[in-house]
Amino acid sequence: MKKIKIAQFGLGPIGIETLKLAATKPWIEIVGGIDIDPAKVGKPLARLAGEPRVGRARVHRSLEALLATAQPEVIFHTAVSRVKLAYPQIEPMLQRGISVISSCEELLYPALREPRLAARLDARAKAAGARLLGTGVNPGFVMDVLPVCLTGVCREVQAVHVQRVVNASTRRGPLQRKIGSGWTPAEFERRFQRGQAGHAGLKESAALIAHALGWKLDALEETGKAMVALADIKTPHVTVQRGQCCGLHQLAVGRMRGAVKITLDIKMYLDAPNPHDAVEIVGDPGLKNIVTTGVAGDGATVASLVHAAPRLLKAPPGLVLMTDLGVPSFA
Amino acid sequence: MKKIKIAQFGLGPIGIETLKLAATKPWIEIVGGIDIDPAKVGKPLARLAGEPRVGRARVHRSLEALLATAQPEVIFHTAVSRVKLAYPQIEPMLQRGISVISSCEELLYPALREPRLAARLDARAKAAGARLLGTGVNPGFVMDVLPVCLTGVCREVQAVHVQRVVNASTRRGPLQRKIGSGWTPAEFERRFQRGQAGHAGLKESAALIAHALGWKLDALEETGKAMVALADIKTPHVTVQRGQCCGLHQLAVGRMRGAVKITLDIKMYLDAPNPHDAVEIVGDPGLKNIVTTGVAGDGATVASLVHAAPRLLKAPPGLVLMTDLGVPSFA
Repeated sequence: MKKIKIAQFGLGPIGIETLKLAATKPWIEIVGGIDIDPAKVGKPLARLAGEPRVGRARVHRSLEALLATAQPEVIFHTAVSRVKLAYPQIEPMLQRGISVISSCEELLYPALREPRLAARLDARAKAAGARLLGTGVNPGFVMDVLPVCLTGVCREVQAVHVQRVVNASTRRGPLQRKIGSGWTPAEFERRFQRGQAGHAGLKESAALIAHALGWKLDALEETGKAMVALADIKTPHVTVQRGQCCGLHQLAVGRMRGAVKITLDIKMYLDAPNPHDAVEIVGDPGLKNIVTTGVAGDGATVASLVHAAPRLLKAPPGLVLMTDLGVPSFA
Repeated sequence: MKKIKIAQFGLGPIGIETLKLAATKPWIEIVGGIDIDPAKVGKPLARLAGEPRVGRARVHRSLEALLATAQPEVIFHTAVSRVKLAYPQIEPMLQRGISVISSCEELLYPALREPRLAARLDARAKAAGARLLGTGVNPGFVMDVLPVCLTGVCREVQAVHVQRVVNASTRRGPLQRKIGSGWTPAEFERRFQRGQAGHAGLKESAALIAHALGWKLDALEETGKAMVALADIKTPHVTVQRGQCCGLHQLAVGRMRGAVKITLDIKMYLDAPNPHDAVEIVGDPGLKNIVTTGVAGDGATVASLVHAAPRLLKAPPGLVLMTDLGVPSFA
């Protein structure tokens, strides 16, 4: 079996988990990492990950430094949420013919907010025979790919509604803070308006659904509210008092000729009861689907990234969407 | 938009529904039909379908007769359940470079029962630049593609369990008879053993899951039992007395080194309460998914066939599996 040589850009918690999963795959060879943190540069990846199987390849301070020692075919990019910030990191990779699989939420459907940058990334990738994919669990699966997949057996689709509830108490500290835990509700909403808080990628999920179904939305709007703690909450990472913000409730609504075609509703908050992922396809047949366990956790995110690699390398070069790739699967 | 020219092989109820759905797609042009029934040959498809949008193309008695008047790129083939019977119908299509999308259940994973014929179909298709796909709703979606899709976000998968309950009272007469309605339970089980009754394609669904997950099963066994009517049942198509067979309960179990890796459990019977489709992925994260509405009906079958066309034409020539294609979607 020819192995896929991979490197990891960004050695935060998600990057480390990506490497640990990659190390379990017989079809992957880990050739290095990239991170700007001087405390990490030069260290063997296995030591950073605390997992010997990750191997002795090391962390480099830049793409150039990595390329002096290794030639990855695919780089897993787990660093930022915005296309604007990802662009300067990813463009040089594509220009060298290296395919990129990124957890950058806006890269799920980059043409939504950054059509010029998306077109440029697509052109760079095509010119060098590389591919670029944005994916993850959300965006990347539960609120976009899974509902699209369900429409495959519908002969009519009038609307797609998705509802996700995540119990943030079971997640990492950074996520518990990102959703506004401990702020006043007004503070959360102010920061949400400025794009400094909230779940990134919700509108991108709606845009991907619309694209896959051939819908030209003429409006796509998003709102974000604080979920308010009904009692004091303490996790290993944050402390929230009754009345403070303990998470978020975001809603994206896509309309076509006035009719609501897509609603994506996500609540992510501390101590949320009954976490789940529900999809309703209004159509023929109409379908209601529910993942009663929910699909949360960094495990699902990194699985989505790593499993995309062999499928991505079969796709034609350029900017690739999750719905263009083969059916997701454990690989 | 370049239209895909399609023809329909087999003008029974599923073939007619396929044409009616195809007629709603702006990217399809219907160029003809094929059926051996002398009562249908020569008739315009629109008249047979009772739907003007299906158009004035006609039914021909053979592929040769159709090709004298039209050049389809794709033929929808809805005629038989067994690869052995489909082979002589499909081979000449592939040899002429025409791609085929078939509801033949065993074609979901033809190498399981007919490895020689599967290899030959693959070779024929490759030689002529054609593609062959077996799909539908089951097999083709609920008990194979959907569970595979869910594993995409799992970093470990130990086992896949699927449970499907279909209320056969809501289905067509031929299906109500195929599941043994009105027979004695012993009669159903005798006929099931001989391959003359039951749900076709269950082992193929298990084989497709195993293939997608890279599992080499060392045993794949199937059992079939009658569901026994607890009261008299009357549908527009069949009458069943208490104690008679009113449907089936089939179970396919796949094992690897003694461990159960896949169970596919289907109950399809008259007046079944609570029809649904449930998937459990034992893994990390473990997932439980349920389509609470179920996904039944010929609508779902024909949607799966028609929607596969544009994705199939993007695949490399040869025998193609549903899990090789892009994510299913309404198209």
